[in-house]
Amino acid sequence: MSVSGPLSGVVVADLSRILAGPYCTMLLAELGARVIKIETPGTGDDSRHYGPFVNGKSAYFTSVNRGKESIALDLKKSQDKAIFEAILTKTDVLVENFRPGTMEKLGFGWERLKALYPRLIYAAASGFGHTGPYAQHPAYDMVVQGLGGIMSINGHPGQPPARVGVSVGDLGAGLYTTVAINAALYHRAMTGEARKVDVGMLDCQMSLLENAIVRYNATGKVPGPLGARHPSITPFEPYHTADGLLIIAGGNDGLFAKLAMALGLEALPSDPRFKTNDLRSQNAEALKVALESVLRTKPMDHWVQVLETAGIPCGPINTIDRALKHPQVSARNMLVTVDDPVIGPIKVAGNPLKIEGFADPATRPPAPELDGDRARILAELGL
Amino acid sequence: MSVSGPLSGVVVADLSRILAGPYCTMLLAELGARVIKIETPGTGDDSRHYGPFVNGKSAYFTSVNRGKESIALDLKKSQDKAIFEAILTKTDVLVENFRPGTMEKLGFGWERLKALYPRLIYAAASGFGHTGPYAQHPAYDMVVQGLGGIMSINGHPGQPPARVGVSVGDLGAGLYTTVAINAALYHRAMTGEARKVDVGMLDCQMSLLENAIVRYNATGKVPGPLGARHPSITPFEPYHTADGLLIIAGGNDGLFAKLAMALGLEALPSDPRFKTNDLRSQNAEALKVALESVLRTKPMDHWVQVLETAGIPCGPINTIDRALKHPQVSARNMLVTVDDPVIGPIKVAGNPLKIEGFADPATRPPAPELDGDRARILAELGL
Repeated sequence: MSVSGPLSGVVVADLSRILAGPYCTMLLAELGARVIKIETPGTGDDSRHYGPFVNGKSAYFTSVNRGKESIALDLKKSQDKAIFEAILTKTDVLVENFRPGTMEKLGFGWERLKALYPRLIYAAASGFGHTGPYAQHPAYDMVVQGLGGIMSINGHPGQPPARVGVSVGDLGAGLYTTVAINAALYHRAMTGEARKVDVGMLDCQMSLLENAIVRYNATGKVPGPLGARHPSITPFEPYHTADGLLIIAGGNDGLFAKLAMALGLEALPSDPRFKTNDLRSQNAEALKVALESVLRTKPMDHWVQVLETAGIPCGPINTIDRALKHPQVSARNMLVTVDDPVIGPIKVAGNPLKIEGFADPATRPPAPELDGDRARILAELGL
Repeated sequence: MSVSGPLSGVVVADLSRILAGPYCTMLLAELGARVIKIETPGTGDDSRHYGPFVNGKSAYFTSVNRGKESIALDLKKSQDKAIFEAILTKTDVLVENFRPGTMEKLGFGWERLKALYPRLIYAAASGFGHTGPYAQHPAYDMVVQGLGGIMSINGHPGQPPARVGVSVGDLGAGLYTTVAINAALYHRAMTGEARKVDVGMLDCQMSLLENAIVRYNATGKVPGPLGARHPSITPFEPYHTADGLLIIAGGNDGLFAKLAMALGLEALPSDPRFKTNDLRSQNAEALKVALESVLRTKPMDHWVQVLETAGIPCGPINTIDRALKHPQVSARNMLVTVDDPVIGPIKVAGNPLKIEGFADPATRPPAPELDGDRARILAELGL
């Protein structure tokens, strides 16, 4: 079922559920790995029960599990343990996102795995990582978005805190885990050594908060929500035109000079309030008044054309339906079709990992039925 | 200057500026690669001029460029071109985030690079990718957050759209580029072939929007901002206690039953409105009323203890200062010290890519002065 890619030939045994782990293994599948999902008999991955449903089947599940295989195993039973161990003899990378300690309880702690399967890379994605005083605490995306601080800088000042509109806790952890697994595969290729990867969602939030952290540590001021502005780049926010909000981003003096010229505001770049990016950030409100005095005179389409001609990054605030219709989305094959036997054909996000020479087809295989690949997997193992 | 890691021995020539590329090469440096930053003479990376400044030096720049080396080269001049070409003979991965076409104009298009340096992996991170009708359009984080749709689902209903509180456009592109580079390194190790990586920020937004995309495609309803709630998991939001908001996340029936028990609401799981996650999501407001009727009777600290004992993921909404004081952050070494000669010691986000057997020291080398490593780099090249 796997696609062609840099990880062709790599086998992933995937014990992960819901989002952080499954998003990671979906990316591994997009890179050409074969992903065997090992699920709890009866219920399977929790996200099989998350909406929206189409003809009774979870589209949520399809989105991040397309192109994987499934076998249902109860790792507390000896017969199923033996099947799992047979799978591990063929596995390059084991991925799980249990609470730390679960693998040890099941008899598959890293020390034992390492001894039995010396070429096995073991990747654990957990809420708080496998070390430290909070290692045993359970966490979901939302908890880590709260604890980690990202909600406190997301949204508008004076409003209640807003969750980031995507599951940045889970997706972030999935991405860092994917980075670490690929690095560990490279390391194994170079040295023969297989290592354990230990990614914590809270750690990942810290890395994503790098700019907020350094702002706080440099100034002592606690960062608050900035609405739609960038904290240290100006102009870099939505501005009012005659008929809607247009985002304009001018990250350096050259772009700012071009912007001023394009708007017929030639005096702005030499205005002492706006001479440098730092001064523009300090005087962002005054700059907004000056820019909008011109922008409000004409509609958005007019300004998009003027600014794009001048080479200034700008664009509208699209809703999801409009974003998906952007011609670049289809040109880059960023909506692929899964032809699911129950759901029917449904479009899901494509593969952003574009690497020369590997196929990027317009379709992806469906997400597996629970235990749907048992017979074939057992036959391959001679069981 | 490099740390020990799975990419030890890998040399990265880094033409990238501001955030997406530099964040990628910072992660490569954390994985043990040597990163040589090639900057424009005089001004250097734009982000050297982004605040906050400490003693006149950009802390923004330090955050994502610690541990790299710098040489200033004008790639339009033949003498500097020759130095760049000498560097490329020692380079495993070239990273740039120019507008597509820039490398060709400089005489370093992929076809020529591939012919001259057959082991060179070339990674380009751009706004819209290197193909398609929008390839030539400039983009910054903010433009892609707007165009891609993420702003339309971020924030509270009825409020103006909010930018995600971190630069998820740039950081996302940086992360996917890092994944692709590591996969390309593995592929090169296995086959000897070096490939081009072409990551577009808009593509990355689509991948991060996977759930919103599948919700829209499954239901036809355009996703809007959901404030602080998860769109398809309930309970999964902040609830009022006697003295503040507490996030509670119960992603499956088992956790929901435990939560109901812990709150003394034993009848809830058999209530027809709350029997499944999907029903709970449809009746989220009614569930909130039921849960808060109990939660409001006691302070947050009380409930954190009760729920954690019961194994239910929960936590407060921290500001950045409080998040950084979380004991798990220091236990996981997620704040490392850069002892900068100008700024002084400053704490920045640590390395979330925890891989067994590699050092994760408490300090990192400073970000380089512009052109600060010229003499040593030239000497190494025999120039």
